[in-house]
Amino acid sequence: MTIAEISEDTGALMAAIGRRAREAARGLALAATSDKNAALKSMAKSLRQQQSTIAAANARDLAIAEGRGRSAAFLDRLRLDPARIEAMAESLEVIAALPDPVGRVSAQWVRPNGLEISRISVPIGVIGIIFESRPNVTADAAGLSVKAGNAAVLRSGSDSLQSARAIAACFGEGLDRAGLPVDAVQLVPTADRLAVGLLLGGLDGAIDVIVPRGGRSLVSRVQAEARVPVLAHLEGICHVYVDASADFAMARSVTVNAKMRRTGVCGAAETVLIDRNGGAPLIAAVVGALIDAGCEVRGDEAVQAVERGVTPAQESDFGKEFLDAIIALKVVDGVDGAIEHIRAYGSQHTDAIIAEDAAIAERFLREVDSAIVLHNASTQFADGGEFGFGAEIGIATGKLHARGPVGLEQLTTFKYQIRGAGQLRP
Amino acid sequence: MTIAEISEDTGALMAAIGRRAREAARGLALAATSDKNAALKSMAKSLRQQQSTIAAANARDLAIAEGRGRSAAFLDRLRLDPARIEAMAESLEVIAALPDPVGRVSAQWVRPNGLEISRISVPIGVIGIIFESRPNVTADAAGLSVKAGNAAVLRSGSDSLQSARAIAACFGEGLDRAGLPVDAVQLVPTADRLAVGLLLGGLDGAIDVIVPRGGRSLVSRVQAEARVPVLAHLEGICHVYVDASADFAMARSVTVNAKMRRTGVCGAAETVLIDRNGGAPLIAAVVGALIDAGCEVRGDEAVQAVERGVTPAQESDFGKEFLDAIIALKVVDGVDGAIEHIRAYGSQHTDAIIAEDAAIAERFLREVDSAIVLHNASTQFADGGEFGFGAEIGIATGKLHARGPVGLEQLTTFKYQIRGAGQLRP
Repeated sequence: MTIAEISEDTGALMAAIGRRAREAARGLALAATSDKNAALKSMAKSLRQQQSTIAAANARDLAIAEGRGRSAAFLDRLRLDPARIEAMAESLEVIAALPDPVGRVSAQWVRPNGLEISRISVPIGVIGIIFESRPNVTADAAGLSVKAGNAAVLRSGSDSLQSARAIAACFGEGLDRAGLPVDAVQLVPTADRLAVGLLLGGLDGAIDVIVPRGGRSLVSRVQAEARVPVLAHLEGICHVYVDASADFAMARSVTVNAKMRRTGVCGAAETVLIDRNGGAPLIAAVVGALIDAGCEVRGDEAVQAVERGVTPAQESDFGKEFLDAIIALKVVDGVDGAIEHIRAYGSQHTDAIIAEDAAIAERFLREVDSAIVLHNASTQFADGGEFGFGAEIGIATGKLHARGPVGLEQLTTFKYQIRGAGQLRP
Repeated sequence: MTIAEISEDTGALMAAIGRRAREAARGLALAATSDKNAALKSMAKSLRQQQSTIAAANARDLAIAEGRGRSAAFLDRLRLDPARIEAMAESLEVIAALPDPVGRVSAQWVRPNGLEISRISVPIGVIGIIFESRPNVTADAAGLSVKAGNAAVLRSGSDSLQSARAIAACFGEGLDRAGLPVDAVQLVPTADRLAVGLLLGGLDGAIDVIVPRGGRSLVSRVQAEARVPVLAHLEGICHVYVDASADFAMARSVTVNAKMRRTGVCGAAETVLIDRNGGAPLIAAVVGALIDAGCEVRGDEAVQAVERGVTPAQESDFGKEFLDAIIALKVVDGVDGAIEHIRAYGSQHTDAIIAEDAAIAERFLREVDSAIVLHNASTQFADGGEFGFGAEIGIATGKLHARGPVGLEQLTTFKYQIRGAGQLRP
């Protein structure tokens, strides 16, 4: 990891980062699996060795952020305690143990003229990763990039810049010890916001894809300004639809888990839709479970008529990402009503149906156009680790290239190799 | 196909088109394969029935284009004779006969907690297709969209607008007869260039992806202005590298085919690289074959030293898309020199090696980062039909989602369906 001197000329600095990334990507694309894994393990080792240096840098970031009056939640995301640094190191070791996603033949066929065509997975090239205040995001992001044979350009939020530098220095050490290009993971060393604009412009062809990791305003800026493809994660407006055929106990447990296990994750349920045909008992069962679990329930009139502990829902509560112990609840006309509601208010992220009627469940799975649709399971399974991907860089809510968890496979592309014997096209 | 009255208010017109497309996409996404195939065959039937109407509209377009002083090549692309109309109808029938790309399970696994995860192909949604003066492009574009379950919004160049309207009317008839939404294929009915900008802006979320079919200036505008993903086809700067180990006869025949079969297609070779170790006999063999085939050869000094019929190459001849019977020729230091040259001058489209040495060929196939790399075969095989895709909408030179020929499969995305038994996330 070469940390360039902070340049007066951010343009020249970023152009140089782009050129180095492109060159490093070339080396990394052809690197042996064993070398990439050695680098990842060595990066983990450096993180552990430099734990106190990282902690000291993080303390400086925290002091400045406190001085800026950042919220407690913000400071918590920024904080790197020994457990979080160890978790970063372990994450790199998990990625080292995953199969190499590069060089996999995903299709192979022979044409009538004898041409043998293979579609083979290859790295994308250079990934620009823009994140905000969570410096530990760098480990998963850089680790997945390296394993998939891509060079990464990391752009940290200004609040976590010193922490990110200390972490990135460890990545550089690890790459160097494994004989891989140190520029395979570069951190943008300046807080100048112009650097983000330049990165989104693609650095003159050096950046192949941008992955934003942050809140709505970051993602909006990225989507508005990016001149290169983006694997973006928008909101998770996740729904649980409880059909009249649902098992009551399952409806209660899954709904509570979907909302309350962790309320701040993108796979947390934000709206429960209840089948009108289930009547008052179904409504009472689900609402009671949520209230008992400490959740504020904002219900429509049909829900209010059944349960007194319910707050009246505003129209704006539907389609809202609360990311808190609050849920909107609406009574709908069966699976059709649920599909309609999700179509109008959802974010094509993750939606679930609780039903014993298999035909109704299959209709939901088929007709709801979301990255992840579940039958009789919690929306909180929307996670690369839970999919068995080992690690993820986020959940993509766009439809092209990657949809759902973005793990190693989603950080590769493919090419066609054709083997012939002198064939000419007629 | 609803052709709205040309509105003074292009904004309102385009917004309405977007809403109708989104609604039609929903119906088409769930349509049975048999209905989609019936629609395609019915569209073909209408094209044949309306042949004279289409020809008359085309004659009006041609007269206006001639009045505008368009080139002969331009007028040829614009012209629809009975053979071309029949070819459009046949293309729709070919697409009807292809397997449905929707609903294919591309991966399926069971997690330790019992969750069954399936990755299943689904339509993308709404595709905006912007094309220039070749009205027959509409058939492949609309046909592939319908078969993949997507709604299409077609934007024709102003020179072919009347032809495109007549063709689009046939699509509407075909869709209607098969009971599918007529708005599944809509043509933007105005030549107002503002409509392109609005389409590139995504029509308020209605457009999922843009496919430009046209020259460099169209693609540049699309890439600069698009706020939605683009499957773009940039230049095809295709190389043939002739290794010293090449079979001379094969080197001659493949090089000539790669350049001269059709000089105006994107898979036509534009530069030949010859291994210095092959010496004067190899250079003479390849250059002689090209000159005999009627090709102008622009060679570097090493080539000029061997063959007198060679024009001196300028630096700007390397990396140039001639799309004509002209080729640039350079002597390089073996496969390493070839890989370096292609990296510096290529467009990551299609590149070939002619070699008998298998190890050298494998290095080329592995290290050249292009959508299509070939060993001992002509670059002109860069074509969806030649891949067995049945039909294609273009060759994608970007790296995400689709790379190489864009056929039916590349016009789908996927979703994850998860089947559980009440699992909660711990």
